[in-house]
Amino acid sequence: MTVRFKGKAPSRRAFLKGTLASTAGAIAGAGAASAATPDPLITEKQSWAMGTGDGVDATPYGLPIQYEGDVIRRNVEWLTADTISSINFSPIHALDGTITPQGCAFERHHSGAIELKKEDYRLMINGLVDQELIFTYEDLERFPRVNKTFFLECAANTGMEWAGAQLNGAQFTHGMIHNMEYTGVSLRTLLEEAGLGKAGDLKDKWIYVEGADASSNGRSIPMEKALDDVMIAFKANGEALRKEHGYPVRLVVPGWEGNMWVKWLRRIEVTDQAVESREETSKYTDTLENGTSRKWTWVMDAKSVVTSPSPQSPIKHGHGPLVITGLAWSGRGAITRVDVSKDGGKTWETARLANPGQPMALTRFYLDTTWTGEEMLLQSRAMDETGYVQPTKHMLREVRGENSIYHNNCIQTWWVKANGEAENVEVS
Amino acid sequence: MTVRFKGKAPSRRAFLKGTLASTAGAIAGAGAASAATPDPLITEKQSWAMGTGDGVDATPYGLPIQYEGDVIRRNVEWLTADTISSINFSPIHALDGTITPQGCAFERHHSGAIELKKEDYRLMINGLVDQELIFTYEDLERFPRVNKTFFLECAANTGMEWAGAQLNGAQFTHGMIHNMEYTGVSLRTLLEEAGLGKAGDLKDKWIYVEGADASSNGRSIPMEKALDDVMIAFKANGEALRKEHGYPVRLVVPGWEGNMWVKWLRRIEVTDQAVESREETSKYTDTLENGTSRKWTWVMDAKSVVTSPSPQSPIKHGHGPLVITGLAWSGRGAITRVDVSKDGGKTWETARLANPGQPMALTRFYLDTTWTGEEMLLQSRAMDETGYVQPTKHMLREVRGENSIYHNNCIQTWWVKANGEAENVEVS
Repeated sequence: MTVRFKGKAPSRRAFLKGTLASTAGAIAGAGAASAATPDPLITEKQSWAMGTGDGVDATPYGLPIQYEGDVIRRNVEWLTADTISSINFSPIHALDGTITPQGCAFERHHSGAIELKKEDYRLMINGLVDQELIFTYEDLERFPRVNKTFFLECAANTGMEWAGAQLNGAQFTHGMIHNMEYTGVSLRTLLEEAGLGKAGDLKDKWIYVEGADASSNGRSIPMEKALDDVMIAFKANGEALRKEHGYPVRLVVPGWEGNMWVKWLRRIEVTDQAVESREETSKYTDTLENGTSRKWTWVMDAKSVVTSPSPQSPIKHGHGPLVITGLAWSGRGAITRVDVSKDGGKTWETARLANPGQPMALTRFYLDTTWTGEEMLLQSRAMDETGYVQPTKHMLREVRGENSIYHNNCIQTWWVKANGEAENVEVS
Repeated sequence: MTVRFKGKAPSRRAFLKGTLASTAGAIAGAGAASAATPDPLITEKQSWAMGTGDGVDATPYGLPIQYEGDVIRRNVEWLTADTISSINFSPIHALDGTITPQGCAFERHHSGAIELKKEDYRLMINGLVDQELIFTYEDLERFPRVNKTFFLECAANTGMEWAGAQLNGAQFTHGMIHNMEYTGVSLRTLLEEAGLGKAGDLKDKWIYVEGADASSNGRSIPMEKALDDVMIAFKANGEALRKEHGYPVRLVVPGWEGNMWVKWLRRIEVTDQAVESREETSKYTDTLENGTSRKWTWVMDAKSVVTSPSPQSPIKHGHGPLVITGLAWSGRGAITRVDVSKDGGKTWETARLANPGQPMALTRFYLDTTWTGEEMLLQSRAMDETGYVQPTKHMLREVRGENSIYHNNCIQTWWVKANGEAENVEVS
C-alpha cells in the first residue's frame, strides 16, 4: 500500500514533535505481501512517540512483559493425581527459533521440585570403580567443561494421542520438550576420575543414576552411552539450572528420553547389570498389542510438529502470505529435511530449515506460503541423517498397537478451517 | 580420594532408605583432580534423600532459585544521572556457556523502558522508497523469518577503563553485552517490499532508524549494511522480547555497536545522506588526543575477558585443578583463537574454545590448568577470522589517546592473589 498523508508529507522534524496527521491510506489492491493495513491508530490524538518509560532498575531479574502473560507453562489437570507428580508443558505454539527459555521450559517431576543448596550438594560415584568418590558442587566446577545445545523430550510426549486426537493444542500434544544450551562436565571425565579398571570389560557394564528427590527416579544407562556424550550439567542457557530443572546439577542424556535426564543428581553407580528399577519396568516401557512390553527404548526417534498455525495459534490475519512454522528433532542425529502437507499427507512441500540441523537439538522449519482461505489438513514430516522418516499414526499403530503411552513420534494433523481456527484431528 | 564408610559399605537398598552412615573419608594425598573432600554433611542426621519438594504449577513462568539471587543485572549508580537513562550490566562473571537469558541480559535505555502493545505497534518505512509502508506487528509475522544468534555490545562497554582500572568486576567492566538467538525478518525483505527503485544507486544511500520511546535514539546505517544482515527481530531466545529489550520489535545490527540496535523500532527512512543525529555526533563518536573525533566507528572489534576467576568470582577452592574461563567476540566475524596469560602478557597459552567460533556471536573459552597458589596477572587475548588480534591498553592509547569513552577493546588484567581474590589492575 501507499501511505498517504493529509496535505504534504510531514518533515522528520514535525514527525518527531508528534504532530503527525492521521493517515488516509487505503489498500491499493491485494498487492505485495501484507504491508497493506490502513491505520486508524495513527491519528492526531496519538503520536508514535511514547514518552518516557520506566527505568528497569527495579527489576534486576526481568520477567516477560504483561502482554505475554499467556506464554507460560501449562498443566493438564487430569494427567496426574497431584501437583507433587506433575507435568508442565512448554508453550511451543507461541515460541519461535529453537532455544526454550528456562522459565517456560517443560518440566516434569515425580515427587516435587526440591530446593537443594550448592553447599549441600554431593554427587557420589560408586560401584565397580577403582575409587569411590564424592564430589561437591565446587569439585565439579574444577573439571574441564563442555557446552552443547540439546533437546529434552519426555518419552510420554504425544502419548495421549495414541488413542486418537485428544488434546487441542501443540503445547499439550507436543510441549513435553525443551531445547537449551547446557554447560557442564562430561560424565566420561568423572568416570575416568573414579577409574573403570575394576569394571573390567566395559561392553556389558551399566551405570545406574538417581536423584536426590524422594522419587530418586533411578535409571540404568549402558556404559557405551555413559562414555559417549552424557553430561553432568550445572548451567542451562548460560545461567544456573532452575529449581524445577534440577538445580544445582542434572544429567543430560542427549537424544534419549527425558526421564533419564535425572534432576538433582546425587549418585552414579557402575554396575554389571541394569537395575530394572520402577522407572524402567512398570514405567517407561512400551506395552504392545499382545500385552508384552518393549523395554530399553531410550532413543527419541525423529519427530516434528507444526507450532503455528495450530489450535492455540490460529490464523488471525486475512488471506495472502502465511508463515507455517514448526519444530523438528531426532535423538539419532541431525534433522536433514522437513516436509509440510496441507492436505493430510497427500502432497508434500519441502520446508526451509532456519539453520542446518544440529545433532539432537531442535530444528526450526518454515514454509512461506499463500493462504486463500481454503481448509487445510496441516502436517509435518521430519527426516534425520540416518535416513529415518517420521511415520504416520497408522504406521505406528500397525507395529505397536494402541496400548502404548511412550514414544509416539507420529505425524500430527491440524485441521485449519476457513476462519483460521485449527483443531487437532486424525486422518486415516 | 577413597570414600570409606563406617563398617561395611551400605547396600543400595539401605542407602535409598536414607540410612547412610557418616563418611570417614580422608584425602589420600594430593591425588587425582579435585574429587577429594571429606564430607561432614553426610551424617546420620542428614541423608541425601530430600523428601518431596513443591509442585511448580504455581510458577507457570519460573524465576531462578532463591540461592541464585545475586546473579542479576546490576547498575553503576554514578554512570547516569537518573534511572530514566540507565545501564544494567549482565552478570557475566556468574554465567557460563554463551547464551544470555533475557531476564539478566544487559540493557541500556535513554528514556525509560516503554510498554508498547503489539496491537498498537506500527513500523513505517518511508523516504526514498517506491511505496511508503506501514506494518503492523501481524504484518511482520507474515514475512519469511530468520533465526540467528548474535552478541550485542554497547560501544561504551569497558569505556570507564580508558583512564585506568576503575570498576572491580567483569560485570561492570565488560557486562554491557549479551548474546541471544533472534527470530525476525531480514530488513532486506522489508526494504525490497517497499522498493528501492526510487533510491537509485544504493552505494551512497543510508537508512535512518528510530524507536518509539521519547529518546527516539535515531541512528544512520549505510545501505550496504542494511541490505546485508540487519534483522527486524521480535523474539529473543525463543520468546517475545522483554520490555527492556524493545518489545515488541527491535533492530538487530550484527557486530555493530549496541546503540544502533534500536528498540521499540517505529521508523526506517531511506535517505541520501546520514542524518548526523545526536546519537552519532555528540555521542557514540570517539574523541582523539588532538580533540577531533572519529565517527562512524560502528564495528565492535575483537575482544575478550576472563569471567572467572575475576573480582566477583574469586577462587574459593584450594590448590590444584582450576578452570579459567571467559568470553570472546568480534564484530568482524568468528573468533578463531583465544590466548590466556597468567603473567600479565609475558607468556601465553592457547585456550580451548568450547565450540568453533560463530560470526558475531559470543565464544566461550576455557583454560584447564593447575593453580598452586601463585599470584597471577590474568589476561585473555582474542583473535578473529580477519587476523585481527585484540590489543593491549597501551597500544590502544597510543593510537587514540585517553579521551575516548567508546570502543575500548583492550586486553583486561585481573590480579589474582594468593588467597584467590582478584582485583582489576592495569599492567604497563
